[in-house]
Amino acid sequence: MKTIRSRFALLATAIAGLAGAQAQDPLPSWNDTAPKHAIVAFVGKVTKEGSADFVPPAERIATFDNDGTLWCEKPLPVQIFFILDRVRALAPQHPEWKDREPFASLLKGDLQGSLSGGEPALLEMLAATHAGMTTEEFEKIVKDWIATAKHPATKRLFTGMVYQPMLELLAYLRANGFKTFIVSGGGVEFMRAFAEKTYGIPPEQVVGSSGKLQFEMKDGKPALIKLPALNFNDDKEGKPIGIQTYIGRRPIAAFGNSDGDLQMLQWTGAGSGPRFALYVHHTDAVREFAYDRHDPDQKLDKGLDEAAAKGWTVVNMKDDWKNIFPAAP
Amino acid sequence: MKTIRSRFALLATAIAGLAGAQAQDPLPSWNDTAPKHAIVAFVGKVTKEGSADFVPPAERIATFDNDGTLWCEKPLPVQIFFILDRVRALAPQHPEWKDREPFASLLKGDLQGSLSGGEPALLEMLAATHAGMTTEEFEKIVKDWIATAKHPATKRLFTGMVYQPMLELLAYLRANGFKTFIVSGGGVEFMRAFAEKTYGIPPEQVVGSSGKLQFEMKDGKPALIKLPALNFNDDKEGKPIGIQTYIGRRPIAAFGNSDGDLQMLQWTGAGSGPRFALYVHHTDAVREFAYDRHDPDQKLDKGLDEAAAKGWTVVNMKDDWKNIFPAAP
Repeated sequence: MKTIRSRFALLATAIAGLAGAQAQDPLPSWNDTAPKHAIVAFVGKVTKEGSADFVPPAERIATFDNDGTLWCEKPLPVQIFFILDRVRALAPQHPEWKDREPFASLLKGDLQGSLSGGEPALLEMLAATHAGMTTEEFEKIVKDWIATAKHPATKRLFTGMVYQPMLELLAYLRANGFKTFIVSGGGVEFMRAFAEKTYGIPPEQVVGSSGKLQFEMKDGKPALIKLPALNFNDDKEGKPIGIQTYIGRRPIAAFGNSDGDLQMLQWTGAGSGPRFALYVHHTDAVREFAYDRHDPDQKLDKGLDEAAAKGWTVVNMKDDWKNIFPAAP
Repeated sequence: MKTIRSRFALLATAIAGLAGAQAQDPLPSWNDTAPKHAIVAFVGKVTKEGSADFVPPAERIATFDNDGTLWCEKPLPVQIFFILDRVRALAPQHPEWKDREPFASLLKGDLQGSLSGGEPALLEMLAATHAGMTTEEFEKIVKDWIATAKHPATKRLFTGMVYQPMLELLAYLRANGFKTFIVSGGGVEFMRAFAEKTYGIPPEQVVGSSGKLQFEMKDGKPALIKLPALNFNDDKEGKPIGIQTYIGRRPIAAFGNSDGDLQMLQWTGAGSGPRFALYVHHTDAVREFAYDRHDPDQKLDKGLDEAAAKGWTVVNMKDDWKNIFPAAP
């Protein structure tokens, strides 16, 4: 009897252990393919005390692009939907927009027409919607908008269009002593309004593009006014510059999805000691979108070549990710 | 016998408890005066869960000026000694400096003469010593210099001229869940080279003035080149702008020592909920330096008035600090 009981106890322990091990898979939405192996191997070696590849926790900086790396950027980056919605919301205060491009087309419902002016058109709408208020007013506008704004195709909240495997990766890195940063071409104050709740990344770990600010007294209280002038463009060569200026330490791991992230991955990869660079390659037209070398807006072309040449990790979304988005609420 | 033993045990426990309580004073270099009481009361209330003044750890941002607040800035801010030493070190590569101010005076040993050109002279020496190399080369130059550079009067290392009470305050705040930042007019890459070792403040929590950077490939490797052009001046109105741009969250506590910190303290103090603003007032000519309203370089004038009007805490160094500098090594 005693022996049977002991055996049963052993078996129960073994089963609990297995269940525990499964429950503890930190990356359950990643298939058991090369990218997951590469991530786990990298984290394992840099956290192993006494090993030649050990990196002290303070130096475990990981930087992530946002659009297309942490959340969906198609059919348009989320911040562009925000700009378009804001133009519509502000139109009653700007009767002159009815006759002025790029506003006129947009207000007639012609989105493509409004964007046909390219970057200058977009910059004009950016200035019209991102300046002329205090930083606190802007934060509230973004928070109110992002709480209800939905993706045009899936009708899910934009904050539900985040990549579940990347949420798991962020949590896994943090659990291993990494400090996770966003380094994105998106507006820093736009992203900070939701990054903490959505990604667990606090405002002070968000690096992005920004407009100039002006300090002034408003009704006897200090205020920061958003001006319609560019302060910093955090894209391409701007990404390593943003990293150096804002973080002041070279990352040991960097994650992107387009040629706009190439310089960040180069800068990260060129440091001494163990380094990790990963591209998310959008290959799943069924579950998400498929685009790369010939995409007019978010091109991944030179990056694919350099990844192959340097041995960087490339996630093939279709094959390497079990789930793309979180389960619907 | 048993009773006596029990009583002795009780007594021993009581004594150990007292000794423990004394050993645990987190601010031993602060006299038992109003500033210490104010700090402890503030930290107590914002960390008390369930109280109306409770602040979640993520929002416990504390910002510190550096020169004159965390370390000594007299007779000149430390970075100016660095500039002067660098001009001397680089002079052999610049024979033209022998005939050109502000370099000529400095190389003849006439420090006052070299600085008599005011800010333009200083900016010219800044550009000559802080640009034209990679960020990594500059970091090494600063680290090598700060490892041996000494204060001209005390002959202590500059990193020994930090304020012991402020080191204790930084540690006390961090032990209570605060994230401590430097927000200083000093050069961000200069400060980052020693802030982690000296103050326990990592590079990504140092906000400062900066020059422009350029990303380029150098011998096939990506490099960031320091350019002789100002990117951001983190002083006065620049301090709240720097806080918003780099940190993205309004501090709940801010610490300064001059009118250059006034806008940071205003911005911090004007937020909702509990706020703490503190000025270090240099009143101790014997142990350190005494200067305030009429100092030509580091004036504390408007700040003293506003501190009185707003009820901010003012440290009278002479009376409120038991020790100024750490014990000599």
